[in-house]
Amino acid sequence: MAPCALTVDSLKVLALADHLGDAIARRAQCIQNEIETKPGSHPLDEGTEGLRDVIAAGITSRDGFPCNAEDIFLTDGSAPPIHMMMHLLIRDEKDGILCPIPSHSLYTSFMVLQGATLVPYYLDESRGWGVRMSDLKKQLDGARSKGVNVRGLVVINPGNPTGHVLVEENQRGIVEFCRKEGLVLLADEVYQENIYIADRKFKSFKKIARSMEFGEGDISLVSFHSVSNGYYGECGRRGGYMEVTGFNSEVKKQVYKVASLSSCSNISGQILMSLVMNPPTVEDESYTSYQAERNGILLTFSRCAEAMVCALNRLEGVTCCKAEGAIFVFPSVRLPKKAIAAAEEQNTEPDVFYALRLLENTGIVVVPGSVFGQL
Amino acid sequence: MAPCALTVDSLKVLALADHLGDAIARRAQCIQNEIETKPGSHPLDEGTEGLRDVIAAGITSRDGFPCNAEDIFLTDGSAPPIHMMMHLLIRDEKDGILCPIPSHSLYTSFMVLQGATLVPYYLDESRGWGVRMSDLKKQLDGARSKGVNVRGLVVINPGNPTGHVLVEENQRGIVEFCRKEGLVLLADEVYQENIYIADRKFKSFKKIARSMEFGEGDISLVSFHSVSNGYYGECGRRGGYMEVTGFNSEVKKQVYKVASLSSCSNISGQILMSLVMNPPTVEDESYTSYQAERNGILLTFSRCAEAMVCALNRLEGVTCCKAEGAIFVFPSVRLPKKAIAAAEEQNTEPDVFYALRLLENTGIVVVPGSVFGQL
Repeated sequence: MAPCALTVDSLKVLALADHLGDAIARRAQCIQNEIETKPGSHPLDEGTEGLRDVIAAGITSRDGFPCNAEDIFLTDGSAPPIHMMMHLLIRDEKDGILCPIPSHSLYTSFMVLQGATLVPYYLDESRGWGVRMSDLKKQLDGARSKGVNVRGLVVINPGNPTGHVLVEENQRGIVEFCRKEGLVLLADEVYQENIYIADRKFKSFKKIARSMEFGEGDISLVSFHSVSNGYYGECGRRGGYMEVTGFNSEVKKQVYKVASLSSCSNISGQILMSLVMNPPTVEDESYTSYQAERNGILLTFSRCAEAMVCALNRLEGVTCCKAEGAIFVFPSVRLPKKAIAAAEEQNTEPDVFYALRLLENTGIVVVPGSVFGQL
Repeated sequence: MAPCALTVDSLKVLALADHLGDAIARRAQCIQNEIETKPGSHPLDEGTEGLRDVIAAGITSRDGFPCNAEDIFLTDGSAPPIHMMMHLLIRDEKDGILCPIPSHSLYTSFMVLQGATLVPYYLDESRGWGVRMSDLKKQLDGARSKGVNVRGLVVINPGNPTGHVLVEENQRGIVEFCRKEGLVLLADEVYQENIYIADRKFKSFKKIARSMEFGEGDISLVSFHSVSNGYYGECGRRGGYMEVTGFNSEVKKQVYKVASLSSCSNISGQILMSLVMNPPTVEDESYTSYQAERNGILLTFSRCAEAMVCALNRLEGVTCCKAEGAIFVFPSVRLPKKAIAAAEEQNTEPDVFYALRLLENTGIVVVPGSVFGQL
């Protein structure tokens, strides 16, 4: 128990130096109890039992639908479990996964590494980067007609790199589509707390599925979350979880077996992930300062995003959708013909040419859209 | 810098409560400086620059041959980088890697998962689980004659699950073999500090190779280490590194690219790994207590191992090699014919049958040898 004890001791000692000392010490004691009083207190491969209980309770409270702690696997951030699930789905180069474009390279690069077939579906910039159901169907049918076994669909909500938040109707369409077509839905929900518009609220894909009365037997769904990407942004901590639902027990055993290959995830990340899913409540002494800090960070993000979008839309040849969530905006830049010709002369993609010139002339760093598969 | 700052703050506050407060606070400040004063202080994908410098200096001092910090990748324990390097070596089912038998399932299971060809070589129990060079050559030639592209060789020293420590002559033979046959040498050296016999000292495979005057251009070698497996045994912290040498710059770029897919490893594990490779020296106030604790733990391990081997060798039908290192012994149990027949009747491997009966009758847990590929 050395690893856990040190962490909790640190928290306790830290607590002495804090005006919320008692509250922190109580929380630390609570974590220590969760870790030490359960059988198998050496971290299990799928994560410490007590912390998985806390996270499951947090998900239950978030969704209003029950979450089973046995469905939770604690992970070193979100990349390893995403790769693990894609690895499990892909048998050979004829297996494919539907991935959004533009998409985080986490997905597209791994598909290349795995030698699998990436089946792209294109997010609709003209409708705030929503998913066009007709395109989804078209891409699936197209891939199948070429002999590709499409096994799953990746959805990133709130969007990375687009900063959009899907409307509920769109989410319901995706759930229905995956159910009907027998696709595993891989839901990247790491920006679930970063939403900037008043009329949009985060709804997990599991909440959507359950509210449509689709249960375990109807749809296979994996939700990913991490401590790197919310308003907390603890990138270096590598805490994360995946919630694995709708697989039969034989498949679940294989998921467990593959997860075990890499041993447990780091215990401080596990504790931090449990704190994210179990924040102070109104009864806690720390609630007011927690709310003030959280709201302050989110307000800053939101104001920056708004200022950025405003400024971008004032530029000639540039348009940008409203930033709804996550921490990105993905503007469209229409380059003059001469710039395109100059890029071609240098044997460079026009957007890479633009990004480099922008950096050289203004010091502003942007990532070329082609990195995300967007042309 | 939030993730690092919290860690170092914890150390600082902890330091106040410790009689070695000043020494700990200085070390914490030193780590904080390493992390914060370098460019790119957000953890790089391959690990924090300053901590990689510290680890490279530790390796240089351990081996007496220079280590370049650019060859160090900080990792979440040793399993992810081992799998990553095996993943990079394996293109399809015709690619193979030489793995020792008995071997940790980390290797054998991943080969199965990857659909690659495991080329076994058998450790020689009659010579303290050393590597028989003639068997190595026989297995390699046999695999090649079947059209397998053998790309690498795994060696675990000190041995898991055998508890042996290779003699230098054997290590030199393995290095020469890999160099001559063009194999990447994957050296699992996670038990490097757990050696229990006076006349054997840990020598890294890089030290051996360099002392044979084989440089970067002669042999591709990856050494793995972690904070889980030494006398420190911080399993839940998931700190580790790999040292990647002897690859050309194009290949190195690909290693970096694949490492980047999973973002950085957890920062507390990174810090802990740097502490393992940079322990207190004789000038430090904490040196005496550090030495006492370290030697005490290792002495306990060593005494337990000796008592275990003695007891095993007194049992009828059981023989066990001397425990030289790591934390394992791997006894040979000759089962009576009746036990084998009883196992067959239950459609169970004899060793699994024995292990279960031992557990039921005595409460003693052993792992059946067949789990490690040993029959």
